[in-house]
Formats: sequence, C-alpha cells, structure tokens
Amino acid sequence: MEKDNKKITSRDVDFAKWYTDVVKAAHLADYSSVKGCIVIEPNGYAIWEKMQSILDQEFKKLGHVNCQMPLLIPENMLNKEKDLVEGFAPEVAWVTEGGSKKLDEKLCIRPTSETLFCDYYHNHVKSHRDLPMLYNQWCNVFRWEKETRPFLRSREFLWQEGHTVHATKEEAEKETDQMMGVYHDFHNNVLAIPSIRGKKTEKEKFSGAEYTLTNEALMYNGVSLQAGTSHYFGQKFSKAYDVKFTNKENKEEYVYQTSWGTTTRLIGAVIMTHGDDSGLVLPPKVAPVQVDVIPIMQKKAGVLDKAYEVGQALKAAGLRVKVDDSDKNPGWKFSEQEMRGIPVRVEMGPRDIEANQAVIVRRDTREKITVSIDELADRIPEILDTIQKDMLERARAHRDAHTYTALNYDEFKDTAANKAGFIKAMWCGDQACEDKIKEDTTCTSRCMPFAQEKLSDVCVCCGKPAKAMVYWGKAY
Amino acid sequence: MEKDNKKITSRDVDFAKWYTDVVKAAHLADYSSVKGCIVIEPNGYAIWEKMQSILDQEFKKLGHVNCQMPLLIPENMLNKEKDLVEGFAPEVAWVTEGGSKKLDEKLCIRPTSETLFCDYYHNHVKSHRDLPMLYNQWCNVFRWEKETRPFLRSREFLWQEGHTVHATKEEAEKETDQMMGVYHDFHNNVLAIPSIRGKKTEKEKFSGAEYTLTNEALMYNGVSLQAGTSHYFGQKFSKAYDVKFTNKENKEEYVYQTSWGTTTRLIGAVIMTHGDDSGLVLPPKVAPVQVDVIPIMQKKAGVLDKAYEVGQALKAAGLRVKVDDSDKNPGWKFSEQEMRGIPVRVEMGPRDIEANQAVIVRRDTREKITVSIDELADRIPEILDTIQKDMLERARAHRDAHTYTALNYDEFKDTAANKAGFIKAMWCGDQACEDKIKEDTTCTSRCMPFAQEKLSDVCVCCGKPAKAMVYWGKAY
Repeated sequence: MEKDNKKITSRDVDFAKWYTDVVKAAHLADYSSVKGCIVIEPNGYAIWEKMQSILDQEFKKLGHVNCQMPLLIPENMLNKEKDLVEGFAPEVAWVTEGGSKKLDEKLCIRPTSETLFCDYYHNHVKSHRDLPMLYNQWCNVFRWEKETRPFLRSREFLWQEGHTVHATKEEAEKETDQMMGVYHDFHNNVLAIPSIRGKKTEKEKFSGAEYTLTNEALMYNGVSLQAGTSHYFGQKFSKAYDVKFTNKENKEEYVYQTSWGTTTRLIGAVIMTHGDDSGLVLPPKVAPVQVDVIPIMQKKAGVLDKAYEVGQALKAAGLRVKVDDSDKNPGWKFSEQEMRGIPVRVEMGPRDIEANQAVIVRRDTREKITVSIDELADRIPEILDTIQKDMLERARAHRDAHTYTALNYDEFKDTAANKAGFIKAMWCGDQACEDKIKEDTTCTSRCMPFAQEKLSDVCVCCGKPAKAMVYWGKAY
Repeated sequence: MEKDNKKITSRDVDFAKWYTDVVKAAHLADYSSVKGCIVIEPNGYAIWEKMQSILDQEFKKLGHVNCQMPLLIPENMLNKEKDLVEGFAPEVAWVTEGGSKKLDEKLCIRPTSETLFCDYYHNHVKSHRDLPMLYNQWCNVFRWEKETRPFLRSREFLWQEGHTVHATKEEAEKETDQMMGVYHDFHNNVLAIPSIRGKKTEKEKFSGAEYTLTNEALMYNGVSLQAGTSHYFGQKFSKAYDVKFTNKENKEEYVYQTSWGTTTRLIGAVIMTHGDDSGLVLPPKVAPVQVDVIPIMQKKAGVLDKAYEVGQALKAAGLRVKVDDSDKNPGWKFSEQEMRGIPVRVEMGPRDIEANQAVIVRRDTREKITVSIDELADRIPEILDTIQKDMLERARAHRDAHTYTALNYDEFKDTAANKAGFIKAMWCGDQACEDKIKEDTTCTSRCMPFAQEKLSDVCVCCGKPAKAMVYWGKAY
C-alpha cells in the first residue's frame, strides 16, 4: 500500500500545493460536488470539536450562554443596517422558492447574524436589569466566495458568533477587548500560534462596526491570516434595529453592542503554521489523538498485549491515545502517524519489552527518547508540555525572522517584492495611502498593533506626519 | 415582578396552549421574525447540549465519527433517488441566486443528507478494507412545513444524522437495530420517556428506506410522538449513487447502508411527557442545572456565605448547581426554579443554618426532605436517582393507562373518538385499511411493536386474516 506522505509536495517548493496535499492526505477535508463547499472529514472535524470544547468552556466561564438563531434572514430585515447590507449583500445566497412556490420575500442564508440577534434583543431587552445579555452560537454561515480553498475560504463555513448587549459603552468596550484576549490566549496557549493583537483600520474593519479588534497570525510561507476578530458596534445596530432599554435613571436608551467570531479557518492556520513535509503537526492541546502506540513485530507473543496495557495506562493518565493494531507494517504506521500530526508515538518491540522500555518519538522534532515502560505515563505528559511550548517558540521565532521594517517607500516596495512576511511601517491614517500601498504591492494593513513602536515620524507612503505603526502584509 | 407561572394555562384545560406557555415562560424558545423558524433560547439550547453530549458519547463508544457535509444540494444530485425526491422535493427551500447572479442550477437546503453522504462515499469507498464507514453529523436541516410548533415541527431544526455503509446486509441490519436501541435506551434511561420499539409500516417508513425502525412515545395528552428512527436502506441508495466496493472475493458489490436521526423535537417530548402546571420538569440526567440552592432571608449575616459553601460542596460532588443569590424574594425564586424544571431546590434560612440543616424539595413530587447540611452532598445524588426512576415509572404508568385495545372496528372508532392514547389493534398488512382508519379516525399506524401480542386473528378494519398487532394513534 502506498504511503500517504509520498503524495506530498514539499512546502518550500509549492506551499499552496503542499497545503492541499496535506489536507487531502491527512483526510481533513475534501472538495464536494457542491461548488465552493467542502466536506469536513472526521480527522478535520475532530480538531474542530477540540477547538470548540476549549473555546466554549472559556466563553461559559465568562458568563456567556449558547443559543440558536434561524438560518435565514428576510431581505427586508437585512436591509435595515446600511453598512452591513453594503458589505454582505453582494455575496449572499438567496432562497426564492419554498414548498414548491415562489416566495413573496426572498430570504438569504445568514452570512453573519447581527440582524437576527438584534431582532431577538429588540423583543427581549426591556430594562437595565435584563442587561448584559451575553449570547453566543455555534453554526454554519454562507458567503458566495469566488475563489475557495479548504478551511481558509469556502462558501459555507462553521464558526461561533458571540453577540452581546450592554447598558454602557464602557462595559461593551471591555467585552470587545476581553474577547479579543480570549482568542489571543487560545491562539498562543492552545494552538501555539503567536498572534498579534491590534486594531483594524477603518478600511479593513467589519462592515457596520465602530471598530474591530483583531488577532493576526503569520503562516510559514510569510502570508498573514486574520484569526479571530472582536467588534465594537456602539449603538449603530441598536439604532437601526430599535433595541432600547430603560436605564437606571428610568430613561430610554439604545443598548451598546459587540460581536466576535472565529471559524474553521483556524484549522487551516494550524496546518500552515506547524505542518511540514511529512504532513500535519498538531499542538498537543488540540490534538484529537495525542499518543499513537505502535507495536513492532506485533505477531510475536506478548507484544500486542503489552501495547494494549500501555494504551490503557496512558488513557488512565488522562491522555488521548490510539493503539495502532492494524495489520499494516510499522513504517506505514509511522508515516500515517506523522501525516495526521499525532504529537508523539510510542514504539515498542519484543526486545524493548524484554528490557522494559519503549521509544517515544516527538512528531515536531523527531527526537527519540528511550524510557522505562513504567515511566511512560509520567514522562509523556511532560513531553507533550514541552512540545506545546517548543511549537509556540518555533512559530514565534519564525514570525520574528519574517517580520521586516520599512522606513521609506522604496524599502517598503523592495521588501514586499522580495521578502515574504509582515512589514512594520508608519502610517498617516489616510485611506489613500492604504489604497496606494495595496495597488503597488498587494499588501494590506493587517492591524495597528497594541504594542506600538515609533519607527519614524512620517508615513512610509506619503511622508506626512505618522499616526500609528501598522503591520502590513499579504493575506489569506 | 409578576411570577412567570401566573401566565401558564392549565395542561388539562388546553394542552396546546399550556405547551406554548411553558416554552415561552421557561425561555426555551421564541418565535422569530422568520416565518416557521424559531429561536432556541439559552435555557432550551442548554438542554439540547446535554442531549448532544450524552448521545455523542454513545455514538463514539460504538465507533462512529463526526463529520460535516455541505448545507446545499444541487437539484441534479437530489434527483438521483426517485423515492427521496418524491418524499422531499415538495417541501424544500431552493436557493436560486448567489453572488448577485441567477444560478444555472438551483440548490436546495438539505432536508436530510443521504445524497451528500452517498456522493462522498462514492468517491471514498473502494475496498472492503474501507468498510464499515460509520459517519454522523450534527447540523441544521430545513423543510418547508406549513404548520409549525416550537421544537415539534419547524422549518429549520437541529438534529444528528448518522449515515453508515457496510460490506454486508447482516452488518447493516445489525447497525439499524443497534441505533434504534441506542435511542431507546436514551429515551428510557436519560429522558425518562418509555418509548415503544417497533417497525414502521410501508406507508409510514422513510422515503427511500427498505424499512424503518422507530421509537414511539406517548405524550401526557395521549398524542403520540415519533422520537428517533433508524432506517435500513439495503442497496437502494448505493445503486442510485453508484457506491461500490471490491469485496473479499475481489468482486464489485454495492454497499449496504443505514441512516438514523434524532432531533430537537426531543425537547418537546420532554416538556410534554413530564411538565405540569408549574412549568417544566426535567429528568436529572438531562437537566442543565440539577440543584437550585435558594437562601432564605439572605441579607442576614452568614446566610449567603453558607449558601455559597453548600453550592461549592455540591459542585465538588459532581452536581450541576446554581446558587440563586439574586435580590428576588424566595417565592419568586421557587416559581422560577419550578418553571425551569430544576429537579431539586435546597432551601436554607438562618434558623436552618443554626440547626445545621436544609430542606430539599423535589420538583416532581414537591416532597420536602429535611437533611443535615453535612449530608447534602450524599443525599442529593440519591434523591436525583430516585427522581429519575420515579419519572420514568410515572410516565410508564400514564402511558399504560392511556393504551387501549380494540377488537373490532366499532370499538376502534369509539376509542379513537372518546379516548386519547394508543390503540392496540390487529392489522391485515394492507395499506387500504391504514388509509381507511386514517380517514375515519385521523389515527395513523405508529408502529408494529417488537413485543407483538395476538389480540385476535383478524384485521380490526377489514376482518381479513391479521398479520401484525399495530399501535395506532394521533400523532405530532
């Protein structure tokens, strides 16, 4: 049987092809017969389930509750908030027939659910005692994208969207900031992706938001990826959808609102941050299987029994374990484990067992560690912790090595043309400069990071006084 | 503030109104501005999350894996299986415009996903070594229903749909039976709903199935509800969608297929089986909150602290606990706890605390049990177990008391006209009798139970020789 990793293009030769090769060979997703839509296969969906369960716990700890809004939005309801319509109307799918009849009013498949939450809050928020309402939903959304790529951009995708309403501006802004931070911690501590916190420019913010906070990550190939945004709406939507409450002074006021979301594109981010030419490399915290126990010469008496025993002991230690007892040969099993990104494998053959030892192999470094079988359940959790930390450090070092500074426009254009990565440069705050930079270099402003540096006094593009340092880059 | 239970119609006066009153007053769901679609509010969604996590664990124990298929089905793909098209085409919603353009081929929102799974299996099943493939997905589906009722029937609903492919008929039939059994255990042991296992008649089976196994439950008002079906497809779909594999004899063969699903209507079943005039009554195993600790005279020194302490101790014992420290009065809190169906509340005031005791009140019987505070963490789990068992027994007794036998057609019509419940009666196997019974009485065949009884030798309707005993009833 052909080893799956034989099919993989090298990531340094053709990153885009490498990416789709890994997605297919690791059975994460497949194209479907429905244009622009993918099938998320069990290996990919299991990663999403881990992500969901961890994020969902964090949301709930902070008092959020889950609900479910309808899939469809009547045209008239969508049209109430002008910026949202302009942003989304060109890329929605419209239902025009139902129950064998043409509909009087067409319905779009939700591209996002601000309108539906506002409609609900309009009916349910009455007094300041009802606030805050901290709702979230896990669901599918649909946007009619022209070019699609598994996980990164597809017409349908899965996500969570939090929608909260508050009695004060301060509280809503705090929520916006807090949720951006939840994503940031999740990227760094769970996905081992060192994302950069910052604010989007006016041009790049969410249609309808007063401002958008973001986490921007850098992929292995130097292309950046937006990985979780949090929007402050102020009273923009509450005015459009008439969501009012009676405040403590007994006066009517519009609520202050936020929304925040993150999607299955995070699976793409994990692949593109950590993967290598043998396939996926999963951070232990988000790996559906953390340990692959692979018996060597498993037909010899006692080998399989010992493998099952070790598997049981590791499960009892709280690890997610698979014992690969299939009739494939060990080499095939090793490639399979590497392809699927399982963080460690445990190799054990008759001689190892006789010597009461086993070999742990790290997926990220391929380091081999010989350990007494009795110590496996103590050592593997430590090794998984180390892998988790090392993966973050390696990704951070890679990002830093691919973050450049441009002090003038020639330098900017030269870097954009010849290097792949973030470019830090000062900006005057004028959208004309963003437009020019995009036209000249295809780079867009990724964010104005919270950690500002004063690289110079003037805009890298027009030379006028600078207002902020911006991370620029080519983006997915 | 008005107590929510003041708004509830008595269930014996107007059951339909009682039902919607409870749904609204317990904040389980609300109508949305999207016709035929509901908002599942946090209290309702939390019940669904409990159901999901329990069922999902059972599915996974049996080797099933989760995935995610596209939301939309191209018309041409839907049309491949004739029975499925006939069953569903009249009630689907069609997307005809996307990205501001009219589409060349219209796409329907999935009413069920047999077609999409078949399309996937067509591309992925090659050899008997690939089988079985035991896939499941949790998702939303859409059917253009004319009359809708929260949870019981709405255009969009949430469900899980398992779709499996097997190398042999025997294995696929075993799976069909097994999954019907998983639902049965779930109804009985988790939801405390005594469902009846059986087989659907040809008339009532799923469009496109060779046969359908079902679980039928009886609601408090004597109306029956289909609560989880499992379908054996044989090779019907695999022939229509060309899903073939090479068997052990190296010959090409079509796969044998099953599908099985259960939906958010189970929330409706729980409400209508157990609820009373004070609101919802939740079985402890599926209650998002199992214990509501309600301090009395909470402003007195030490009362709230003790309530928090008890809350912590109960959480540490593995219970799902809420401490109601809001500034509402105890009476209000009691009604709220009753309305939401929280299985027990713990009342504790200054005098109780002085005596080191608290009062446990069962939601289902209102029985009050005075217990030493130190024993709460031991006693409450026992009481929850008792409630769980008692609820099942009560539901079973109610069902049995509302199950009638008809030996001739006059008796059948008389029972159907004057009693609400199941009617057991013999049937010749001819659809003409089913049609006549439906026309005369509005009763449909609910199932041919596995536990057959021979009530007589002849069909209750036509008098010809009987082939099976059937449960008949009016159904949601």
